[in-house]
Order: sequence, then structure tokens, then C-alpha cells
Amino acid sequence: MITLLTDFGSSDSWVGEMKGVMLGIDPSIPIVDVTHGITAGGIREAAWILSRAWEVFPAGTIHVAVVDPGVGGERRGIAARAGGHWFVGPDNGVLIAAIDRADADPAAEIREITLRELGHVRRGTTFDGRDLFAPTAARLHGGLPFLEIGPEISDPVRLPGFAPRPKGEAWSVEIARVDRFGNLVTVADEGFLRAQFGDDWRDVSVELANAPLRGISLGYGDVAVGETLLSIGGAGTLEISVNRGSARASLGLVAGDTVLLNGPPSHSSGSPG
Amino acid sequence: MITLLTDFGSSDSWVGEMKGVMLGIDPSIPIVDVTHGITAGGIREAAWILSRAWEVFPAGTIHVAVVDPGVGGERRGIAARAGGHWFVGPDNGVLIAAIDRADADPAAEIREITLRELGHVRRGTTFDGRDLFAPTAARLHGGLPFLEIGPEISDPVRLPGFAPRPKGEAWSVEIARVDRFGNLVTVADEGFLRAQFGDDWRDVSVELANAPLRGISLGYGDVAVGETLLSIGGAGTLEISVNRGSARASLGLVAGDTVLLNGPPSHSSGSPG
Amino acid sequence: MITLLTDFGSSDSWVGEMKGVMLGIDPSIPIVDVTHGITAGGIREAAWILSRAWEVFPAGTIHVAVVDPGVGGERRGIAARAGGHWFVGPDNGVLIAAIDRADADPAAEIREITLRELGHVRRGTTFDGRDLFAPTAARLHGGLPFLEIGPEISDPVRLPGFAPRPKGEAWSVEIARVDRFGNLVTVADEGFLRAQFGDDWRDVSVELANAPLRGISLGYGDVAVGETLLSIGGAGTLEISVNRGSARASLGLVAGDTVLLNGPPSHSSGSPG
Repeated sequence: MITLLTDFGSSDSWVGEMKGVMLGIDPSIPIVDVTHGITAGGIREAAWILSRAWEVFPAGTIHVAVVDPGVGGERRGIAARAGGHWFVGPDNGVLIAAIDRADADPAAEIREITLRELGHVRRGTTFDGRDLFAPTAARLHGGLPFLEIGPEISDPVRLPGFAPRPKGEAWSVEIARVDRFGNLVTVADEGFLRAQFGDDWRDVSVELANAPLRGISLGYGDVAVGETLLSIGGAGTLEISVNRGSARASLGLVAGDTVLLNGPPSHSSGSPG
Repeated sequence: MITLLTDFGSSDSWVGEMKGVMLGIDPSIPIVDVTHGITAGGIREAAWILSRAWEVFPAGTIHVAVVDPGVGGERRGIAARAGGHWFVGPDNGVLIAAIDRADADPAAEIREITLRELGHVRRGTTFDGRDLFAPTAARLHGGLPFLEIGPEISDPVRLPGFAPRPKGEAWSVEIARVDRFGNLVTVADEGFLRAQFGDDWRDVSVELANAPLRGISLGYGDVAVGETLLSIGGAGTLEISVNRGSARASLGLVAGDTVLLNGPPSHSSGSPG
Repeated sequence: MITLLTDFGSSDSWVGEMKGVMLGIDPSIPIVDVTHGITAGGIREAAWILSRAWEVFPAGTIHVAVVDPGVGGERRGIAARAGGHWFVGPDNGVLIAAIDRADADPAAEIREITLRELGHVRRGTTFDGRDLFAPTAARLHGGLPFLEIGPEISDPVRLPGFAPRPKGEAWSVEIARVDRFGNLVTVADEGFLRAQFGDDWRDVSVELANAPLRGISLGYGDVAVGETLLSIGGAGTLEISVNRGSARASLGLVAGDTVLLNGPPSHSSGSPG
């Protein structure tokens, strides 16, 4: 299976052309669109979405992510094997958060794409999504030995990470995304909360404009219509939502903002150390 | 075949994740997007679209509809068998208009989804589309006996229906949808018009702002550019359109408004009785 | 393989219904969306996109394009075989630029769709995309002899073409499209540039508001951030772009505008003759 994640939008033919190239190599490849609605040039936005979505797909899936403002320049194209999945795209950070999360035993292996024959019909010089990454993914799907892609590299481009950061006795937690419904999706995942706060992890609180909000609900209906709640959302991380409303609208927070997270009162110390 | 209808939009990874789960169960399932552009929380809007679209698909198709503002709360998840098709989604009314139209001999059978193993990787608690409905649909596609889904129910949640309503000697007809082209799609389908008005059914008239509009055309070109016409549209129902223009813009009507429909002059009585 | 190109947008069920009809005829047909984001009624816009995208797909692909404001009227439905590909849609010009580019030995063959059995479940009279073109494409995919579609025609509807036009010693070149990133996509393809200007074709210049811009870059990164450049874009034609910015925004040009193209200084004469 091959997944696609780009900032190409839906009004041009670019995504369809990538699929045409891949299905021309093998018409039986299942191709799934993750999203093509990334903000134009939004490398970090795409990196976040890919880092949370890849693991829902079965082992062996090849994830192609193309948010590529530097196309045609010096930046490398890369392919990686990590955690039983494959990742293909530009070496500008868009893949790195997913690779890091998938990194396991054996360790992630990242290669620069240099195999000449992978450069498909190159009509232009600014569409590596179609002309380089699509054929690379389709050939990997067809069994091309990973070694033949090109040389291994150890210095992929990195972005600022998405982990919560200690701040005094609390944690500064980034809002990585605001989804269509106005939910504020933070970077604090359930694993982090359990590791930090143990069995009482649902009893954490977040400091919002007016007052702290405490306790992670099991669903929107746990609070009255129009009230704010915490939940574990579809990305597996802490979300701030309004039942039948928009937390973005009511709290005025946007992607990139941070909120302060405090451990449960029962927790012996609020200190993250 | 499985179809998907949601209010998830195209900028998040939710739809792709649902597909990843289903294709992880069986990578050969054909999956068709009906639309993901339903207004956030627009249960009735989705119910209308599904009720008109399902029958275009072949018998045995499994239709998954997820517009689910009450996710994580007390509302049930349901699966139904009706008219040779399957329907899967929350028990909030989004499926009911389609089930009612598909209801036949044998009668529709609706079951609550309680089979524990259908709860897939549940990272969060607010994404039943991926964690419950997608695996249910894929397992039904794979031959899971319907009986094993869970107990039959007889009290699914209902919404106000879409049928035309008698009003004096005429009919009050809801505009169920305004499509991309500004066509006003009403709930009066060709079967209703034929049943009420017989062979002269094309001779009905609709009362609009300025004047009654009479006669159902065979195509937009039957009137001059810029003129208003009646036709039977893609949903199989009466539509109000403007040739090369937008009826929404020229008439100022929106979804949920009603218009008054009169029978043909030749009809012995305008009375719906 | 079948591709779809329409102005149906993503909020209605029309595209999904077309797929339902085709997969009902053969559930194994690979279907690729080129785009459904064409401006409503934008026949020429769709014609341009199809004319540049079709050749990326493998031989034998069936391209269905439905931008069809005259549906239900007198306009014919057509299917064409050209350059090893198939094209299906209304006879209003939407297919013609692609057919002309694909025309080869043997010459393109265009037939009116008159085969009665191709009219599928015709619930309405204004949705030939689902009721006529989708079944035609699926049946062609299944091996229906082309001869049986209907009679050959020699007078398909034509649109103004996309070729550069001589203007004094220079060329007037249309901006056929502005893509999501604000790139101005012109109609001057690499083949045209090479034929007119020989080995120095990369040394052409375009007259913009402030000054001529000379030289075709290999990628956006060849100029500083915020600077304007020429490149050969994804459509294989000359594009005007701004590195990490929008040429549309900075130059104020839109689709349909023209720019003046001059040959390289080394070219013995700027004259197109």
C-alpha cells in the first residue's frame, strides 16, 4: 500500500499525475490519500500529521510525503525504512518526525535517492513528487532492493520536535494542529501522560484563559453543550474541545501556540523531573 | 465495495486513516468516497445525500456514514441491512433516511454494534469512524455474519423526514440541498410526481418570488441563458436551476427553505388527497 | 485505468456516484481523480489541464472529462481514440485540446455516443456524467468494440487553442493557469522553445511589469527567496514563479492574461518566422 500526503490541494492535476505514474508501474497498487490540504509549504504541519497517521496503516506501507518548496535545488530526496514502514520524500524534515517515532529495532535506515533510473519522464524540473518520489515508491512496492536506491545517510534534515517541554513544575505543550471542528490537538500523547503521571493520568489539568480545566473526558457528551473539555483525540494526544462547538473560536488559540499542563493533584510532585 | 460519507473535510488525515484500517483488514476492498464535505455536524445534510446516493451503487455495497458530534457519549453504533445494501454509522439519524428508502422485503434489520473485537486500535475515544465503524464495515465485507455484530434494535433515532407535505390544494416541498452550481434540489422525486399527477406530471408548477414557474424541462438548454427552469436533477428529484447561472443567487433560497408545488392545470383537482 | 476530471467539487455525491456506476460494471477498474476542482462551467480550464495531464498515464487509459453546462440539450456525447488513449465526455471542446495533442498515426477517431444501452439508470436528465459517460468508459474498459459506440464524426466542437502566437519579433504567450502556489503556468512548452530557439532555449526572456526576466532556472532555489524566476514546471511548460512566494500575488496576473516572450540574445533573429 502507498499513502500520499502533500500540499498540492485539489484543484490541480498534480496528485492525479503522481497516481498515474505509480499505477503505470503497477496498476494493482492500493493508493490512499492521507491529505493534500497541507498549507502550501507547510513542512512542519505535514510532519506532524504524518507522524501520527503512519501507524494506523499496516506494516509494509510506503508513505510518500511531498511538501517541497526547495524542489529543483540542492536538497536531497530520501527514502527510509523504519518500524516496518517506508517513507519517501524530500530531505527537508517532512519525514523526520514519523521516522523518529517509527525508529525501532532494527534502527531506521535512511538512504539518499540517487538511482538514475528512478527519474521518470522528467518533463519539468520542479515536480519531483511525480518525477522522482512516485516512481521510487512504486518501485519499492514492486520489490526493488532498498540498497539500490542510493547511499545511506546519517544527517537527515531535522525540525524542532513535538515533545512537551518542562516548564517549572509543569509542562509546556504545543498545539500542533487545529482540526476542521476547531479541536486544539496538542502534542501530549497518552503514552507521555501515563509515563509522567501514572494511573491518575486522566486527572491532569490545562491552564486556559479563564481557569484551569481538569480531567480528561471519554467523549464530548461528558460535558454540557458549549462547555470545554479535555479528551484523547483521534491522533492519540490530548485535545481541547468544546462540545458541539469550536475550541479555536472560543479560546482564540492557533497551531503553534502552547498551553501549560499540570499533573494530577494526587501526583506526589508536579515536577517533571 | 465500501462507500464513505463524512464531515471530516480534506485537510486532516481522518479519512485516510479510516481507509488504512479497512485496507489493513483486506487490501483488495474497493473504497469509494461519496463526499467528506458535509457541514461539520450536519447530520440531516448527510442523511439526505446518502438517501439519494446509495442506490446508484451495486447490491451488496456497504455504506459508512460518519457525522458524529456525539461520539464518545451514550449514542449507539449501528449496522443495518436493507434492500440488499448495508449501512454502518452512529445511531443519530444519519443512516435512517437511506435505510427507510431501502427498506423492502425482507424488512430492514438494524443491529447495535457491540461485538468487542470490532473495537480496533483505540488510541483515542473520539474517533469511532476509524476505531469502530471502519473495522465493522471491513469485517462485514469479509463475511462476518451479521448476527454476530450485536443485538437487533427496533428504535433507531429518527429525524424529520424529507417527504413533501400537503398544504391546502398544493404541496410544501423542502429544498434539501443547494449544490455546487447553485441548483436548488427539492425533495419531490419523480416517483412522487408521477404518483400524484399521473401522465401530466411534467406540467407541475412551483411558486417563486416573482411568478409561478411551470413545466419540467429535459435539460438546461431548454430555456434561454439566464432563465430559470425546473428539471429532474441528478438526485432524481425536482430541481430549480438557472441556465448557465445560479438559482441560489437569483432566488435567494437556501437549504431548509420550502417552495409551493402545484399540480398540472389538467389535473382534475389540485388537492393532494 | 479510468481518470476523472470534472467541475463537480467535493461537497456533493456526484463524483462518488460516477464511481459507483463504473465499479458496478467492473469492481476491479482502477479509477484516478485528476481533479474535480475546475471552476463551475470552466470548459477551457478543464481542456488545458487534461491536455497536459493525459500523457502521464499509461497507454490504454480512458480519460473522462465532464464540464457540461449544456447537459440535457442538443450537444452530443463523444468518445475518441487518439495516441493510444481514450477520451470520453461532452462535445463542447473540453476534450479537444487533449485529442489534438494525442493525435498521431493512426489519426484520432471520434465517435458520437449513440449506443442506446449505454444510457444507464437515467433517474434524471441532467447528469450525463453518471448516466452516460461513466457507463461508456466502463464498457470501453471492458472491451466494448469502439465501432459500436456510434457513428464517427469529423466536426467536434473546437475552442481557441493554447499555442503561442507571433507578435512582431516576439511571441504572445497565454497564462493558461495559476496553480495553488501562485505559479503562472504558460502555454509555451519545452518542445516549442527548443524548436524556436534551438540549443539556447533556456536563454529566453519574458517581459514583466518592471523589467524583462531572462533565463530558465532548474529549480526555485536558483534565485533568492522572494525573487521571480522562470522554470519548466510540472505541466512541461514555461512557468513564472517566486521562490517561496506567489507570482500571482506579486505580479497581479491571472489565467487568460498573456506575456511577451523574446528569444535568446544569441538567436540570430527574434522573429518567429
